[in-house]
Amino acid sequence: MASSVASKTFLAAPRTDGSLGSLLPDLRRQLPSPNVQILIRSRTPKKLQVKAAGSAFGTYFRVTTFGESHGGGVGCIIDGCPPRIPLSEADMQVDLDRRRPGQSRITTPRKETDTCKIYSGVSEGVTTGTPIHVFVPNTDQRGHDYSEMSVAYRPSHADATYDMKYGVRSVQGGGRSSARETIGRVAPGAVAKKILKQFAGTEILAYVSQAHNVVLPEDVVDHEMLTLDQVESNIVRCPDPEYAEKMIAAIDAVRVRGDSVGGVVTCIVRNCPRGLGSPVFDKLEAELAKAMMSLPATKGFEVGSGFAGTFLTGSEHNDEFYTDEFGNIRTRTNRSGGIQGGISNGEIINMRIAFKPTSTIGVSLISLPLSIKTNSHVGTTLPIVMYSLCFILLLWICSKPSFALLVLLPTR
Amino acid sequence: MASSVASKTFLAAPRTDGSLGSLLPDLRRQLPSPNVQILIRSRTPKKLQVKAAGSAFGTYFRVTTFGESHGGGVGCIIDGCPPRIPLSEADMQVDLDRRRPGQSRITTPRKETDTCKIYSGVSEGVTTGTPIHVFVPNTDQRGHDYSEMSVAYRPSHADATYDMKYGVRSVQGGGRSSARETIGRVAPGAVAKKILKQFAGTEILAYVSQAHNVVLPEDVVDHEMLTLDQVESNIVRCPDPEYAEKMIAAIDAVRVRGDSVGGVVTCIVRNCPRGLGSPVFDKLEAELAKAMMSLPATKGFEVGSGFAGTFLTGSEHNDEFYTDEFGNIRTRTNRSGGIQGGISNGEIINMRIAFKPTSTIGVSLISLPLSIKTNSHVGTTLPIVMYSLCFILLLWICSKPSFALLVLLPTR
Amino acid sequence: MASSVASKTFLAAPRTDGSLGSLLPDLRRQLPSPNVQILIRSRTPKKLQVKAAGSAFGTYFRVTTFGESHGGGVGCIIDGCPPRIPLSEADMQVDLDRRRPGQSRITTPRKETDTCKIYSGVSEGVTTGTPIHVFVPNTDQRGHDYSEMSVAYRPSHADATYDMKYGVRSVQGGGRSSARETIGRVAPGAVAKKILKQFAGTEILAYVSQAHNVVLPEDVVDHEMLTLDQVESNIVRCPDPEYAEKMIAAIDAVRVRGDSVGGVVTCIVRNCPRGLGSPVFDKLEAELAKAMMSLPATKGFEVGSGFAGTFLTGSEHNDEFYTDEFGNIRTRTNRSGGIQGGISNGEIINMRIAFKPTSTIGVSLISLPLSIKTNSHVGTTLPIVMYSLCFILLLWICSKPSFALLVLLPTR
Amino acid sequence: MASSVASKTFLAAPRTDGSLGSLLPDLRRQLPSPNVQILIRSRTPKKLQVKAAGSAFGTYFRVTTFGESHGGGVGCIIDGCPPRIPLSEADMQVDLDRRRPGQSRITTPRKETDTCKIYSGVSEGVTTGTPIHVFVPNTDQRGHDYSEMSVAYRPSHADATYDMKYGVRSVQGGGRSSARETIGRVAPGAVAKKILKQFAGTEILAYVSQAHNVVLPEDVVDHEMLTLDQVESNIVRCPDPEYAEKMIAAIDAVRVRGDSVGGVVTCIVRNCPRGLGSPVFDKLEAELAKAMMSLPATKGFEVGSGFAGTFLTGSEHNDEFYTDEFGNIRTRTNRSGGIQGGISNGEIINMRIAFKPTSTIGVSLISLPLSIKTNSHVGTTLPIVMYSLCFILLLWICSKPSFALLVLLPTR
Repeated sequence: MASSVASKTFLAAPRTDGSLGSLLPDLRRQLPSPNVQILIRSRTPKKLQVKAAGSAFGTYFRVTTFGESHGGGVGCIIDGCPPRIPLSEADMQVDLDRRRPGQSRITTPRKETDTCKIYSGVSEGVTTGTPIHVFVPNTDQRGHDYSEMSVAYRPSHADATYDMKYGVRSVQGGGRSSARETIGRVAPGAVAKKILKQFAGTEILAYVSQAHNVVLPEDVVDHEMLTLDQVESNIVRCPDPEYAEKMIAAIDAVRVRGDSVGGVVTCIVRNCPRGLGSPVFDKLEAELAKAMMSLPATKGFEVGSGFAGTFLTGSEHNDEFYTDEFGNIRTRTNRSGGIQGGISNGEIINMRIAFKPTSTIGVSLISLPLSIKTNSHVGTTLPIVMYSLCFILLLWICSKPSFALLVLLPTR
Repeated sequence: MASSVASKTFLAAPRTDGSLGSLLPDLRRQLPSPNVQILIRSRTPKKLQVKAAGSAFGTYFRVTTFGESHGGGVGCIIDGCPPRIPLSEADMQVDLDRRRPGQSRITTPRKETDTCKIYSGVSEGVTTGTPIHVFVPNTDQRGHDYSEMSVAYRPSHADATYDMKYGVRSVQGGGRSSARETIGRVAPGAVAKKILKQFAGTEILAYVSQAHNVVLPEDVVDHEMLTLDQVESNIVRCPDPEYAEKMIAAIDAVRVRGDSVGGVVTCIVRNCPRGLGSPVFDKLEAELAKAMMSLPATKGFEVGSGFAGTFLTGSEHNDEFYTDEFGNIRTRTNRSGGIQGGISNGEIINMRIAFKPTSTIGVSLISLPLSIKTNSHVGTTLPIVMYSLCFILLLWICSKPSFALLVLLPTR
Repeated sequence: MASSVASKTFLAAPRTDGSLGSLLPDLRRQLPSPNVQILIRSRTPKKLQVKAAGSAFGTYFRVTTFGESHGGGVGCIIDGCPPRIPLSEADMQVDLDRRRPGQSRITTPRKETDTCKIYSGVSEGVTTGTPIHVFVPNTDQRGHDYSEMSVAYRPSHADATYDMKYGVRSVQGGGRSSARETIGRVAPGAVAKKILKQFAGTEILAYVSQAHNVVLPEDVVDHEMLTLDQVESNIVRCPDPEYAEKMIAAIDAVRVRGDSVGGVVTCIVRNCPRGLGSPVFDKLEAELAKAMMSLPATKGFEVGSGFAGTFLTGSEHNDEFYTDEFGNIRTRTNRSGGIQGGISNGEIINMRIAFKPTSTIGVSLISLPLSIKTNSHVGTTLPIVMYSLCFILLLWICSKPSFALLVLLPTR
Repeated sequence: MASSVASKTFLAAPRTDGSLGSLLPDLRRQLPSPNVQILIRSRTPKKLQVKAAGSAFGTYFRVTTFGESHGGGVGCIIDGCPPRIPLSEADMQVDLDRRRPGQSRITTPRKETDTCKIYSGVSEGVTTGTPIHVFVPNTDQRGHDYSEMSVAYRPSHADATYDMKYGVRSVQGGGRSSARETIGRVAPGAVAKKILKQFAGTEILAYVSQAHNVVLPEDVVDHEMLTLDQVESNIVRCPDPEYAEKMIAAIDAVRVRGDSVGGVVTCIVRNCPRGLGSPVFDKLEAELAKAMMSLPATKGFEVGSGFAGTFLTGSEHNDEFYTDEFGNIRTRTNRSGGIQGGISNGEIINMRIAFKPTSTIGVSLISLPLSIKTNSHVGTTLPIVMYSLCFILLLWICSKPSFALLVLLPTR
């Protein structure tokens, strides 16, 4: 197991300086001379430390998430949701339940559930066009033993960098890096999923295509025919039963020694509207990459041919156009992954996302039932994260208009 | 060579409808009944088609790019550049020259150069804090034969999706997807590079780590010691001379049959300030992924252990902390890639970006001298793109404050 | 009393169209021919109506408000609040109490209070740098009789335009235009007020300077010496006791016939940090004007000499510079209102904001005790709104850095 | 004439500190002890001064302006302009010519003109959907005598605050506050005007309704019938010939003593699409107020009944609804100014904007021919500014979708 060092050596102790948090004391000692001084009449320095806010996402359909794993609860505000969309807590709850850890068939189900409540933005069963406030109270606030955390930074976790940046080691501060934060993505994702399905017939599916050293061959899953039921048919959420068994065995082999594994999630978008994405900085693949890489524990992202495509030549890689039976222009192959020039072309978008092995390891994991958990201390499993992926993608698509038609209402 | 089909079948012809461009006529025929109608007094429909603008980037240090490969010129506006930074056209020109195609030692140098001019925002050799306007006129506007382009969509190029989205097939419209657009990134990148070097000692370097099937082993390049001179020492811009030769041979073998190759660029950030990146949606790796995947021809992105790390277990993957001789907390390994919990930790950031093989292939390439061109029709080589990468990263860092100290000036 | 017409004639009845809400049915009838049609495989139109989200404000210190007057509650998310600022519910409650209607000394106090609760972002009494979630449950949800509202649009209220835009006439939808929405501004305002006071010594005060036809002369209040206690010393919140009495009498005279009055609020900023505001589009006065004019019922905004200054000549209007006893450059007069060239200069910022008379009038008002209510149906009084003004201004200042110092943390 | 003091006493002299510009040296001397120190390996402080960028405006139809009155030129980038809109330089030139100073019939016309050139985004006479780059070279760069400016801050100008904020006294830096900056607004405004006229029949007109003490009575101009020709019929650009004469006389009386006057511009929007504006922070009147107050020299803004409306009672102020002959719901009066609840209702929007008297005064003005110049040193007249107003409003409307219909294109 990896060792770790105590907090005090990293960013010194007494945080009395209001401006640079815990960073300055240590640095100041090494300095021969002063060089930044601000004076006001009251002789107290006027310095206010500010950091970029990073909890909001989107423009039209804007989501702001809040909450820590061990505060009062987590949730989100959805601003800009179209009015008159039927919506209830049940729409979100089904996906929140999927996200929840401890769901393996052989697992004792957790008593507490992540029960969401909509406090505003919905009236008489339909959205009103005003901000939708979704809140999921934390019900499991006692148990965890964070005494170890208060002494040492856990390797490859966020607590060292969070402490350095915010000067806060409280559970609440670090709690934003917990997988529980993804509740704030699943809830709006459920709304986005519903809207996109209704208006564009768009479907998003994700499945585990690699767990540790078990790699699902590319041609096993037919992306045209894949269903959610196939994905949900086993606890590792790999649509192929044979490989699912292999993956479970591989994870179990590592789990019994208290260790964790990494893996890859494949995510597809079927019936993605054409024309999504803007040239230059806001290419669709760039937006998708940002969304995926903002999930905890991600280390890589590919679209279409990905890294494997770099071994091809241009003649091998190019997707040939043809006219299908309905007179539509299509491509015979899809190495572009449904995106050309940064803009969706109507073919299936396929992506692969790399998740590192869970950082939390150790003897405590041995006693856990098999649950394919990657981030077991926060309780999120790989396949559950895949739902966040779906929802984030839907959210993203919903926020980026392609062919927005400004309907200018007549004055009278 | 891949075939392609004529434009008219994809998105039909006469574009008489002002609202949905070329999209509607085709669709309308298939419809049994009307369902969206807007009326004004003048009886003309009030519908205005709008698409998201995607040419701006950043908040504090905001860059807006403009220009097409075959219009009057390309360039950018840099808004929010700090005042009193020494800056001249020479600062940008050196990097613009690196970006330019046709630079191989064995290549006849192109006569025309991408000569930039600063029209505003700089006075007496220093920035004034006002928008910096950089313009690079197009000087090579005649030659290209776009007659073929006017008939058929080129496979795996952007013209099909651009035509579908914008209903414009002119060279100018499509020209935003040309590699020449990256001039608008290199110029502000040069400013960002200078600022970051001056204020934080940050250095960014990139090199070709794979060309077609020649893969540079990971331990050959020492990221602590790598210099720009090493990278620039050969035309393929791989810092290891032996592998550089192999890459050149591999490219040449494909080039002589008129074909192109893909490859991978490795990019590192040394002395990256700690604390960059925000929790949740704006994690540093998410921002970097978006920046990299917005470059033309990219298909994949990895940071730290990347996809290879998914084969490890948690105990193999975790980066152990230790206290170095100066009392600083460091990590012994760097599988996190310099980023933990979405925030930079001061270790070297390393990324790998996959570039697909150039889409333009064919007999015309055979006659070209060896120049490692991936996108030969627009003249950008893989190593040149790598400079864009550096600059974009610098730009990105510059736009995202980590420890911004609001200095509230006394009233009197 | 003004009459009004039934809903059905304005925007027709059966809202079965998912795309344009209630707008289309009426328009469609008048149309001779179809012209916008979109078809998908399922033969259902793919049209999604989207409207700009307008509930968020600021960049660094970003506030998102939510909630309706008659849903589950109202509140806000504050993203980007600096860490380690002492904060408790009490800090906000005092200002929320001021905002609350029904506070006149001669008024029966309302039983229910607007009690706020912080659910995240604060731990052990200090902010953690994560989003602060403040929620104020609605406790008074039954009483109001909205039967009339369901039939006719109330004159000069928001219900006609809300119905037209959102196609929703529910109380929740319209509730975003209620003065109760300002709770979502007062809470973050209280945080901003605390931060600015602590770091910059900035103070913001507002008072009623006109109620109906009683106009407080300009030289009666000394802006250098004005205190909050003076403002709070009477129910009309005019710091001059004599004029306060006159205003109360004027309001009472109108109130007894069931009518309402308009008025003007003067707002000052003392010790405003110099350098706030950016040239061109984001001038400080432009930002302040937007903030003030986003409050319900505002019709006008002035800064410094305002409309009165247009009657002066340049020689009469110019503020002469001088050097004060401490060597600081000051202006002898302050017709610029503390802002020159869009940037604060350290002098007192003074603004005047016009509020129209409350739209809700009628016999029901007669029985109400004297309470200077302008928007009596939602219970907000003119002086209470002035606190929202203060807080909004503080919030604004906090979101717009002037001299942000990017402190680039050393890598090690 | 107002005196002024030398630069050096305000913000001290030798600007050797790269981080806080000219602000620190002076402050540092007064400090007893150090308190902010940052160290890097190279022992040079890592401090980078950053200020908010304020030169961009809008989201969908985003305009970025650049250039100073005395650099190479001024201009703008328009990103997000819909494709296939006919556009040429002539469309902009006519409005740029109106903006230009020195246009009075009795004035010697300036030789040089503000000649715009479109460098990108337009091809074969139509927009391509890519960024439109408009550039107006400065041709009159020699004449002005800025020697006085280099010594003393001019009263009520921007140079003191610009110097304080940016530490730059060069003409270029200060040049962003010059009225020449408004060229960057007129050009995109011309595009917006064309689009809105074409798609919504919207017209914007502005005229001078007060010059010094000559106030045009409210009922003289019929806003339903007002034409541009009426406005342009005299040099003061007041549509009523009688009052125009009075205004000219009033200005002339002041002008001959080398003084300047203030005034008020009334701006109306006819056929404004209904539904513009979003609840809470982005109410339409708030957006308009920001746009107007971002113009140089503005001190006040009113909409509808404005400040005068505060003297009314609710029963006098409310706009009664009625159903017109076409079955549309209208209001009999328009004290709301075309906006209710922050959303346009289709009635005429009317605004009044206060402009302070030109700060530049003195003997040099006496010799100028009559030209109604308020900001004579930059050459912009009151009526010319009114065009900027029109364009900004159009730009604003164009950037804020009301009923955007996301048309989700079928995949095939």
